[in-house]
Amino acid sequence: MANPNLSFKYELEKKAPRTNDGGITRGASVTDFPASIGIAGVSMRLAPGSMREMHWHANAAEWGYVITGACRTTILHPDGTSYIDYFYPGDIWYFPKGYGHSIQAISDEECHFILIFDNGDFSEDHTFSVTDFVSSVPPEIAAQNLGLTLEEVAKLPQKEAYFAAGPVPDPSTTLASARSEADISLVSMHRYPLHAQQPRIVPGGGTQRLVTSKEFPISTTMSGSFIEMQPGTLREMHWHPNADEWQYFIEGQAEMGVFLAQGNFVKDQFNAGDVGYVPMGAGHYIKNTGDTVLKILLGFNSGIYQSVDLSEWISSNPKDVVETNFSLPPGEIDEFPTGKIFMKPKN
Amino acid sequence: MANPNLSFKYELEKKAPRTNDGGITRGASVTDFPASIGIAGVSMRLAPGSMREMHWHANAAEWGYVITGACRTTILHPDGTSYIDYFYPGDIWYFPKGYGHSIQAISDEECHFILIFDNGDFSEDHTFSVTDFVSSVPPEIAAQNLGLTLEEVAKLPQKEAYFAAGPVPDPSTTLASARSEADISLVSMHRYPLHAQQPRIVPGGGTQRLVTSKEFPISTTMSGSFIEMQPGTLREMHWHPNADEWQYFIEGQAEMGVFLAQGNFVKDQFNAGDVGYVPMGAGHYIKNTGDTVLKILLGFNSGIYQSVDLSEWISSNPKDVVETNFSLPPGEIDEFPTGKIFMKPKN
Amino acid sequence: MANPNLSFKYELEKKAPRTNDGGITRGASVTDFPASIGIAGVSMRLAPGSMREMHWHANAAEWGYVITGACRTTILHPDGTSYIDYFYPGDIWYFPKGYGHSIQAISDEECHFILIFDNGDFSEDHTFSVTDFVSSVPPEIAAQNLGLTLEEVAKLPQKEAYFAAGPVPDPSTTLASARSEADISLVSMHRYPLHAQQPRIVPGGGTQRLVTSKEFPISTTMSGSFIEMQPGTLREMHWHPNADEWQYFIEGQAEMGVFLAQGNFVKDQFNAGDVGYVPMGAGHYIKNTGDTVLKILLGFNSGIYQSVDLSEWISSNPKDVVETNFSLPPGEIDEFPTGKIFMKPKN
Repeated sequence: MANPNLSFKYELEKKAPRTNDGGITRGASVTDFPASIGIAGVSMRLAPGSMREMHWHANAAEWGYVITGACRTTILHPDGTSYIDYFYPGDIWYFPKGYGHSIQAISDEECHFILIFDNGDFSEDHTFSVTDFVSSVPPEIAAQNLGLTLEEVAKLPQKEAYFAAGPVPDPSTTLASARSEADISLVSMHRYPLHAQQPRIVPGGGTQRLVTSKEFPISTTMSGSFIEMQPGTLREMHWHPNADEWQYFIEGQAEMGVFLAQGNFVKDQFNAGDVGYVPMGAGHYIKNTGDTVLKILLGFNSGIYQSVDLSEWISSNPKDVVETNFSLPPGEIDEFPTGKIFMKPKN
Repeated sequence: MANPNLSFKYELEKKAPRTNDGGITRGASVTDFPASIGIAGVSMRLAPGSMREMHWHANAAEWGYVITGACRTTILHPDGTSYIDYFYPGDIWYFPKGYGHSIQAISDEECHFILIFDNGDFSEDHTFSVTDFVSSVPPEIAAQNLGLTLEEVAKLPQKEAYFAAGPVPDPSTTLASARSEADISLVSMHRYPLHAQQPRIVPGGGTQRLVTSKEFPISTTMSGSFIEMQPGTLREMHWHPNADEWQYFIEGQAEMGVFLAQGNFVKDQFNAGDVGYVPMGAGHYIKNTGDTVLKILLGFNSGIYQSVDLSEWISSNPKDVVETNFSLPPGEIDEFPTGKIFMKPKN
Repeated sequence: MANPNLSFKYELEKKAPRTNDGGITRGASVTDFPASIGIAGVSMRLAPGSMREMHWHANAAEWGYVITGACRTTILHPDGTSYIDYFYPGDIWYFPKGYGHSIQAISDEECHFILIFDNGDFSEDHTFSVTDFVSSVPPEIAAQNLGLTLEEVAKLPQKEAYFAAGPVPDPSTTLASARSEADISLVSMHRYPLHAQQPRIVPGGGTQRLVTSKEFPISTTMSGSFIEMQPGTLREMHWHPNADEWQYFIEGQAEMGVFLAQGNFVKDQFNAGDVGYVPMGAGHYIKNTGDTVLKILLGFNSGIYQSVDLSEWISSNPKDVVETNFSLPPGEIDEFPTGKIFMKPKN
């Protein structure tokens, strides 16, 4: 189990960013946030027309969620097929490990998105940019490879661009125009419009939208969900048998507690922009402690979503098992849950 | 390869137990038994009515074998289905990683069973009990989650129960009654009655019963066997290409030798209650050195069972290959094996 | 990413060999060649009739390629089936992890072959030989197991043979005779005649022959290729998203450069007998810097071959993406690649 002295909270949006040419990025790998062994995350913002240049990740797949704005991505698969996709708030993407891709803000507002990687050891030295590649090899090699003269090679960037400023693509083209409304039918290989999904609703409590490899087949190594909770509501005590959990708090205030066995328990208070982490198998709960709706993005490092909720577990056992387990005289407590709660509204 | 200075023997039943409320447990993880990197094991005893409380394991699946007595288990799957099963001597169970389960002795005698986990790093701090979970979170969270008052929460156990004493479930119910005889048709998703299986028999040598994911589909990550050997019989030199092996000596006396390449070889003497371990790929043999039948439970950390026996390997090669390999003049030795031996009775 | 101070070159054929009884072997595990974490390799030579004795590898599968001569292999599968195969120059074999096998030179010339293992930690202490096994256990155990007297056991080798000298098998038997010409139909479970394959041809540049688990189903954990390049030709800048690459330079002279992100780049010069290594995801190129044809054997630690070439990646992006990415005024550079290059002949 993770060291119980670890913190499961990281104030991502308070970190000093890397920024240039209209791009701003803040990342948390296991180096920054020691608890996050299995999943790393990034919060990135692109000004209109700004591009996170063509790059690939050597050791992780990438799962993205757009919070604001719009962006265009390009990706090449090793089989030679290539794809261009457009993303708007609430849309998810998935890029397999090692596939070259780019992301560019295409509307007249900043595009803010969250990236999740299925490896806590994801970091800049596992990220390869095209300008870094081309400027690192001998100029003669770049010239022969690209069919350029040495003079032309000398005009290319002489080091990694990382972000690149450019014009916003022509918005009059069909593909670049915003969809008028979310439409679940607009699923491409790399894009899943999560907010077009009918959520699971707990009356008075909140909602959950969930995307796994079942709804989004390319996403074989990750799944995710978006939850909204009313003030006072509790996402009940539960655990995930098969995955670590990475949380990005989008709006509101919350308490999150992590149970690490043998009496070890850690809780913390979270605000918008904070990141939380729960190791595979560890018990946890999340409570909306504020007076506004709590919104959280959750990512898991498995394409399959598994969760065991305390109420459902207790309910599934014969009454005498529960009484013996909790050393209760028969009938002492009749109010134990008799079904799955999932989210419990404020009393 | 494992360090040849390691011991491959651990005297499990001589270890000081953890005990309370009618339960007794002795465990061996890689911390106790350094050779056992891939598999950990536990010997547990429950007095009539005593329960190993509702719990889950964060990093390992559990494979169980009942030696004496009877027990009832409960388990909840993440898909919301739940199961209650009854186990008697010779029955096997399998609980996937992270699934919540309980075990309670249900007959009027002690229930003794062996547990094997597919991770040598299995240990208490990866085991999560329901009373530990409920008593670790703030009382307000437990109350909201379980629909109890704070006064009721205060009556629940204030720390981990681990074992819980309770009444033996009513034996008059159909499900709790012992099966009159082993019946292989009584296979449930989680239970396989190994001793109802017709064993592989070596006349004068012994028997083997084997259960893999083929016979017991849920057991995807482990397989096991039960062998009996007559005095003087040798389970011949062999290795497992795909799995580590964990051994629990139930009755009798044995010598087990482990070959670790480059002339490294370790042998030891085993008695009832001892545990042995063989790393994946390492050569080994077991000989009954006592004058009674030797009984051993074997567990493997793969759902597929693979074994290569020395006699079969030599037999499968052309005669000239064997002669060249062993630098023997043609015809020098005619007695080399010409088929698979598996178990070799005393001469 | 790999430490950029690492060398990605190892002069395998300059290493002091292990030799006896007509066998010569030079190996490179991660201990010898620290960069090679995921793949180890061996160059082995057997005099006519000499045999690499019956053995198995505890932690790696073996992929072989014959450069000169001919050999016969034997292998036993755990399901009890056994196979004898004959290999000639350009043929590939694959032996799954832990399966017992032997290799013997069967023609009147030395047989030279390259072995690749899907684990950089492959080494002698993970390799188990039959004579080492039989001589390590107590003589009484060997006698009982093999049905021999103690006097007969005393005549067997008293330590590991490793290589064993013997007569060349009778060449008049059908199976031992050389095939008159390569025939792709002569595919066995363990043998794939790579040089009977029609190569991918880049006019003026070179050729590539490729074998993956698609063409050679047993080879689930490795794939390989053989490339020939004309003087001055560049195997263009590319990377493999899913595998490490191990290179054996058979003929000619080359420069190989490895790009490790963040401006880290390492290049080296390679001659016949040298080994190169490229970590999964790292960018790299190979250029024929000599005035003869360059021949290289490449092995990958995945049964699936994936490669992304720089030219194809750039070509797959809209023109405005490339211009923004490289900070180029529109139309400044028209000569960027517009298709996949793969190999670029000398200008």
